Amino acid sequence: MKHILTRRTIRKYSGRDIDPKLLDRLFTEAARTQTLGNLQLYSVVVTRSVEGKAALAPAHFNQPMVTQAPVVLTICADFRRTSTWAQCRKAVPGYSNILSFMNASSDALLFTQTFCNLAEEAGLGLCYLGTTLYMPLAIIEALKLPKLVFPVATLTVGWPAEEPPLSDRLPLESFVHSETYHDPTPADIDRFYAAKEALPENKEFVRINKKETLAQIFTDIRYTKKDNEQMSKGMVAALRHQGFI
Amino acid sequence: MKHILTRRTIRKYSGRDIDPKLLDRLFTEAARTQTLGNLQLYSVVVTRSVEGKAALAPAHFNQPMVTQAPVVLTICADFRRTSTWAQCRKAVPGYSNILSFMNASSDALLFTQTFCNLAEEAGLGLCYLGTTLYMPLAIIEALKLPKLVFPVATLTVGWPAEEPPLSDRLPLESFVHSETYHDPTPADIDRFYAAKEALPENKEFVRINKKETLAQIFTDIRYTKKDNEQMSKGMVAALRHQGFI
Repeated sequence: MKHILTRRTIRKYSGRDIDPKLLDRLFTEAARTQTLGNLQLYSVVVTRSVEGKAALAPAHFNQPMVTQAPVVLTICADFRRTSTWAQCRKAVPGYSNILSFMNASSDALLFTQTFCNLAEEAGLGLCYLGTTLYMPLAIIEALKLPKLVFPVATLTVGWPAEEPPLSDRLPLESFVHSETYHDPTPADIDRFYAAKEALPENKEFVRINKKETLAQIFTDIRYTKKDNEQMSKGMVAALRHQGFI
Repeated sequence: MKHILTRRTIRKYSGRDIDPKLLDRLFTEAARTQTLGNLQLYSVVVTRSVEGKAALAPAHFNQPMVTQAPVVLTICADFRRTSTWAQCRKAVPGYSNILSFMNASSDALLFTQTFCNLAEEAGLGLCYLGTTLYMPLAIIEALKLPKLVFPVATLTVGWPAEEPPLSDRLPLESFVHSETYHDPTPADIDRFYAAKEALPENKEFVRINKKETLAQIFTDIRYTKKDNEQMSKGMVAALRHQGFI
């Protein structure tokens, strides 16, 4: 897994398609990931068609990767298949609740990340779309997801046609705690974020957005309280629609 | 990542400790995983002390791995550090909501799985404890997790002292869907679960539990409606306690 050290998010792809056999091998290998009771509480919807990508694009704010990548994968928390299995076997499933949603989400996200590790090792380029959680109902409709299936991650996948610079990371001491959680002091914060705040691209980002600090870019523009609260309502509505609450 | 094909959950560990330098290298490499806005919305609490493991054990139903493993890792969704950063930088954080919890959970679980893949490649043995979501308040208390920090995964880690058989997996067609979700028919279910249901250990499991079908083992014993509903209440209470709802 040496490739992990030089991995970057890839948003531009060559015209080359992805062999379905390669994708199947990666799915098969990623499915070795541990899951709750070995139930594999996930599903992947593979979108290759132009119409399918066009239907998904608005849910992802029309980011160009969605229509330009040869393959879009939507990974879902899935208690449907397991519940149908139970119903076919004289068993009464009890998975219409938030714990079950979290269990299935965990399975889906762990599977997703092994897939990412494998795909990147195979030379593919990926972009993980955080937008999946923003408008889940639009994705549910586009992919015809039945009850107890909920989209938790989207990957656009293709052969890389760019090599962006490596992004920065916070120092280890900012996220590794020994024995109990160490709540960061203002002095800790200064130390943890000094390198990130000093990056020329981040300083430029603050300047062109007419902000005082880099943190304000996140709180005032990228991930605002208002947007988060509105999308939380959408998420709760989607969880209810899919029968998890 | 050839090791993925032969990975198994390891619950028995040799007496050998894990070098802190190895653990730090694995954390550093796992942190190359993509996160929302590169905010790295996770934390890891490393438990090595006898007292620390004893404090965590009840939250994990006293499974012996928790006290026997040299290292227990609790990976948390963490919007605390980012919010404190904002407050130190004239920015007003807005992350006390369910979308933010899901965003941070996603970051934490993706990081967790890259860590798993790296650790297993390095020869370590892991057990992923699904119990983390069952009694989060007990873990929150044991690890002194402040508001906006929530435990989402626990790994017991050590050098393997067993080599259990590989576990089965469902066929690819059961979890990979083309373009839209294909809701499984009873005939599909028969095909998907035939191999799992035919395994001698699963047949024995059904017999000794005096059940009719394997699915009943899951619905009636392992993951019951009653337990799921009760633990869902605990989870909602914990999310409220940590300020996410």
